[in-house]
Amino acid sequence: MATSVPTTSVKKDAHPFNRETLEGLLAKRFFYTRAFEIYGGVAGLYDYGPPGSALQANIIEFWRKHFIIEEEMLELDTTIMTVSDVLKTSGHVDKFTDWMVKDVKTGDVLRADHLVEGVLEARLKGDKEARGLKAQVAPVTDADKKKKPKKNMKSVAVQLPDDVVALYESTLAQIDNYTGAQLGELIRTQSILNPDTGNEVGEPVEFNLMFESSIGPTGQIKGYLRPETAQGHFVNFSRLLEFNYGRVPFASAQIGRSFRNEISPRAGLLRVREFTMAEIEHFVDPLDKRHARFDEAKDIVVGFLPKGVQESGRTEIIKMTIGEAVAQKIVDNETLGYFLGRIYLFLTRIGINPARLRFRQHMKNEMAHYAADCWDAEIHTSYGWIECVGCADRSAYDLSVHSKKTGQKLVVRQALPDPIIVERWTAEIEKKLFGPRFKKDAKAVEDAIMALDEPRLVLLNGELVKGPTKLKLDDGREFEITSDLLTIQKKTFKETVREFTPNVIEPSFGLGRILYSLLEHVFWCRESDEARGVLSLPSVVAPIKALIVPISSNEVFTPFIRQISAQLRKAGVACRVDDSSASIGKRYSRNDELGTPFGITVDFATVQNGTLTLRERDTTDQRIGKTEEVISLVIDLVDGRIDWAQACEKLPAYTGVQDVE
Amino acid sequence: MATSVPTTSVKKDAHPFNRETLEGLLAKRFFYTRAFEIYGGVAGLYDYGPPGSALQANIIEFWRKHFIIEEEMLELDTTIMTVSDVLKTSGHVDKFTDWMVKDVKTGDVLRADHLVEGVLEARLKGDKEARGLKAQVAPVTDADKKKKPKKNMKSVAVQLPDDVVALYESTLAQIDNYTGAQLGELIRTQSILNPDTGNEVGEPVEFNLMFESSIGPTGQIKGYLRPETAQGHFVNFSRLLEFNYGRVPFASAQIGRSFRNEISPRAGLLRVREFTMAEIEHFVDPLDKRHARFDEAKDIVVGFLPKGVQESGRTEIIKMTIGEAVAQKIVDNETLGYFLGRIYLFLTRIGINPARLRFRQHMKNEMAHYAADCWDAEIHTSYGWIECVGCADRSAYDLSVHSKKTGQKLVVRQALPDPIIVERWTAEIEKKLFGPRFKKDAKAVEDAIMALDEPRLVLLNGELVKGPTKLKLDDGREFEITSDLLTIQKKTFKETVREFTPNVIEPSFGLGRILYSLLEHVFWCRESDEARGVLSLPSVVAPIKALIVPISSNEVFTPFIRQISAQLRKAGVACRVDDSSASIGKRYSRNDELGTPFGITVDFATVQNGTLTLRERDTTDQRIGKTEEVISLVIDLVDGRIDWAQACEKLPAYTGVQDVE
Repeated sequence: MATSVPTTSVKKDAHPFNRETLEGLLAKRFFYTRAFEIYGGVAGLYDYGPPGSALQANIIEFWRKHFIIEEEMLELDTTIMTVSDVLKTSGHVDKFTDWMVKDVKTGDVLRADHLVEGVLEARLKGDKEARGLKAQVAPVTDADKKKKPKKNMKSVAVQLPDDVVALYESTLAQIDNYTGAQLGELIRTQSILNPDTGNEVGEPVEFNLMFESSIGPTGQIKGYLRPETAQGHFVNFSRLLEFNYGRVPFASAQIGRSFRNEISPRAGLLRVREFTMAEIEHFVDPLDKRHARFDEAKDIVVGFLPKGVQESGRTEIIKMTIGEAVAQKIVDNETLGYFLGRIYLFLTRIGINPARLRFRQHMKNEMAHYAADCWDAEIHTSYGWIECVGCADRSAYDLSVHSKKTGQKLVVRQALPDPIIVERWTAEIEKKLFGPRFKKDAKAVEDAIMALDEPRLVLLNGELVKGPTKLKLDDGREFEITSDLLTIQKKTFKETVREFTPNVIEPSFGLGRILYSLLEHVFWCRESDEARGVLSLPSVVAPIKALIVPISSNEVFTPFIRQISAQLRKAGVACRVDDSSASIGKRYSRNDELGTPFGITVDFATVQNGTLTLRERDTTDQRIGKTEEVISLVIDLVDGRIDWAQACEKLPAYTGVQDVE
Repeated sequence: MATSVPTTSVKKDAHPFNRETLEGLLAKRFFYTRAFEIYGGVAGLYDYGPPGSALQANIIEFWRKHFIIEEEMLELDTTIMTVSDVLKTSGHVDKFTDWMVKDVKTGDVLRADHLVEGVLEARLKGDKEARGLKAQVAPVTDADKKKKPKKNMKSVAVQLPDDVVALYESTLAQIDNYTGAQLGELIRTQSILNPDTGNEVGEPVEFNLMFESSIGPTGQIKGYLRPETAQGHFVNFSRLLEFNYGRVPFASAQIGRSFRNEISPRAGLLRVREFTMAEIEHFVDPLDKRHARFDEAKDIVVGFLPKGVQESGRTEIIKMTIGEAVAQKIVDNETLGYFLGRIYLFLTRIGINPARLRFRQHMKNEMAHYAADCWDAEIHTSYGWIECVGCADRSAYDLSVHSKKTGQKLVVRQALPDPIIVERWTAEIEKKLFGPRFKKDAKAVEDAIMALDEPRLVLLNGELVKGPTKLKLDDGREFEITSDLLTIQKKTFKETVREFTPNVIEPSFGLGRILYSLLEHVFWCRESDEARGVLSLPSVVAPIKALIVPISSNEVFTPFIRQISAQLRKAGVACRVDDSSASIGKRYSRNDELGTPFGITVDFATVQNGTLTLRERDTTDQRIGKTEEVISLVIDLVDGRIDWAQACEKLPAYTGVQDVE
């Protein structure tokens, strides 16, 4: 897919990576910028300019092909505005929160766990410096380290007592596990201040990360901007199942915006308040998590960081095939393994460096409230390891809670090949006693009894044998039940249909994080000149595939330029004409910074001999050929049918114009 | 682009269009549904299911190719969450409102103009019935009629006095021009009640249509969900201009969600609270609105409904070429004309019936607050003529107001070929007098004088000749100015750069409205059976291009199915396997309803002879051929390289399986 070139010809690591240089390039070339910049901007909101948007659109297009088209997934496009009931049921209204603290003097708000973590880490670093040790990267587990770059945490070389060091280290290892009260306690006992101002901070307060609004003119319908696209899949489950002829497994997929009102976002595109996600919900029989296409993924070798390794305080990556990982139960099942493999292929094909990609399993204490198991695809960047794709087993959580709340059955019904005989405890009610005994509550009491599951029926039966007992309703009211009201007994049933709530495997992609990490991975500077940056984006995602440059602004070139660009566009190749007055070297450099893989020069030889020169971005090699031949080669190169080495076999080298500014 | 078939073979108008039938089909096949349906839903919010999402994604992909790639537009992806300052400046906080009234008993909220309009129209209809006239469609102008279908407006045959009829008709003609007070007056004097309940309604109250939220944990940053994507372009103008080497014309483009908190949305996808738009902002020199590619659009014939025709109370459409319309100044300039032509091509290529498409010019009183001229592409549906694309000349409005508010210059600077000599009134200040005279306000007074434009300088000069005068600052304070403080005179300047604020031509597409209108245009029922609906979607937008159906669930077919679908997918053809247990006729009917243009049947002949049968959706023709040949023909058909008639020349007819249920 990517343009492969003889590596001997290009030295990409001549200069160490420098984030400021990259950020300067991205700003100058308008990959992205702070939203409402001319109004001063707002933290955590970014606009993508032309190259950023095109890069994102190309990543999405490839994602759609790689996942949706390739696997016949059922695409959805559900609303961002979500009524509060849905998110109340899913748990987001109650649990999708972070703890925040306020600077007592300035009123600035900080995320409590980030504050504690940052300050303790800075103190540990200062301690190490004081002890004459070089501060080491990544203490404890990377799980905690990866998330939050801290700009203002200066370490001062002060030695700490040994027991304090031990306390800090154990605190950091469990920081995701702390309650608000515990964080408040730590802030007081460890005298943690706002490092930006040196002021004290108040008690931690819970803050819900969802943006709230109200729907309609009366303000009576409360709504939230969705924090994930997933709930839109779950509430449509029955229609999806019907669309798939009532059968599992199947997957739905959705690409769209989600929102999280982060407390104090920093770190550019890595922590934002509005972002584009791509989510897959794969619905599967809980008793059969095999995958029909597992064979296609089983030989892919990836780096794993299982929870066991992390819990023993280590971070080394285990390299093995997906097949081995599933066989050894490191990865629970084929479906999960299959998706890890597909995620790996997706990320590496768009240009992520496989050596800087790992799959890390969540530890018990960091899992989301709905998850049964979770693996993150983490990409290494200058901010550390960044979670870019989550692959969670949400079990039957969401479908169960929505079903319970709405009274709609969200289940799969499967005809059994042979009827089976099952025994089940059941309650039969003496209906005529209910009215006189419970009056207007008769229906509620009856419903409560009928809703009891088997274990509770058995329990109730045991109690009734001893005498009258209390039954507690969902609304908290209690009623006295006596044995004459009902008969509880084991009965035999013949079943021809199996009914079950499917489990959900959810690969969830943060596209902005992937996009930023990719930019770090493909960025380098020319050996000859550190100021000449290059983005070696693969053609499949490069914003513009081919640059067309006339050697001068002479009008004689215009018809040639039009014809070339028309032919390329017809073949679906996004191209751009740069007929600005800058020197040709400068125009090429500018397009190296935009990641444009190929450049086509139109000069007087084009007019006289019908030739074009073709330049490859990474090598700056220039070749010459007949117009038609060059155009058709560019189309083949962009579509990945040939690589640059093969193109060089067809076109002789050109040395007429020097690629310098 | 579309599959052309011999029209003799298919009779698509055997049954009159029935909206309920279409809606039933769309619901059954999960094109779209009410959002959070299992929670009861919320008016104006819809989720797209698999075929609806795929249709929308294909429309967007074609839009991106047709506009962005084809014209090298600069794509943007800006945030939905917008700080209030931006929308205050643009005028949306103050002017993006509708008038609403409340039912005095139920508290139900209605849009005041829709209420008045609906009731008056129903009364006029009743009047006509009473007078024995058949009620006619589309009174006054279509501009007013098209917008709002009314479900609950029952007309009762009651004759009205002639002067009341005249009053109602003139009221309806100007309804968009009424203030809240005037609407309230009408409601009282004409005894207009809530037709749903028969209750009185209260006074009209202004309601802003933007969803409000707040950004960050302190709640101090007010934000709105954007009501259009346009402002995201304007606030990024300087960066876009720089990206385009400082030159105009150029266009930016954006596809994304916008939100309008409609008062009481009805009419399905045509009036919703959350929707996907595609917007182009074409920045152009106000003195030169020619377009470099106008030649490509000038011969396109479209139907125009200019404002002059409407203002004289008529609605007939004038058919002419874009070139003629521009030459005759019906359409103001080449750029506007070019876009009308491109919009026409876009809509007809995705399947909109050109006979049901017109371009209507806005009349003065219905233009948005920012627009200087506006043409709507209106599509005819069962709801009347629906505005689906607006093509407005926003003049320099937005850039000017943002520039004024932020103090950032949002202008194009153009080197003049020859310097020009200009005379201008200027003020020169006696700086040393300002400090003693105005103390701490000296700077403010000086700035205020320097900010005066030429006419105001001349005015001030005239006043100073007579004696001391007052200068009013923006903050309302006044200062006395005397002639010794400054010299105002005409001076001569040599200018080498022309500086101007570009004008903006904005084609703005409501994708949901286009999608729904398209579904109406391509829907028909088989002559033989009204229950067999078909959506004749062109391949370019059809959700699935090819259906693969094994004749039975025999496992012998599995490898063939896999191989066919892999080959199609590799060629970028979205396909779907239907191996459900339904009869083959039923499976084909189901896919006719999904708009799938081609069906490939795998049967025992496939296994034995390597043949496939190929079915075309509209004709239900079946052809037979070798596997490789059929697959390659399907790819050519889908990509529009050949049409069905040409495919039929290559493949013999197949008659082995009847296409019935």
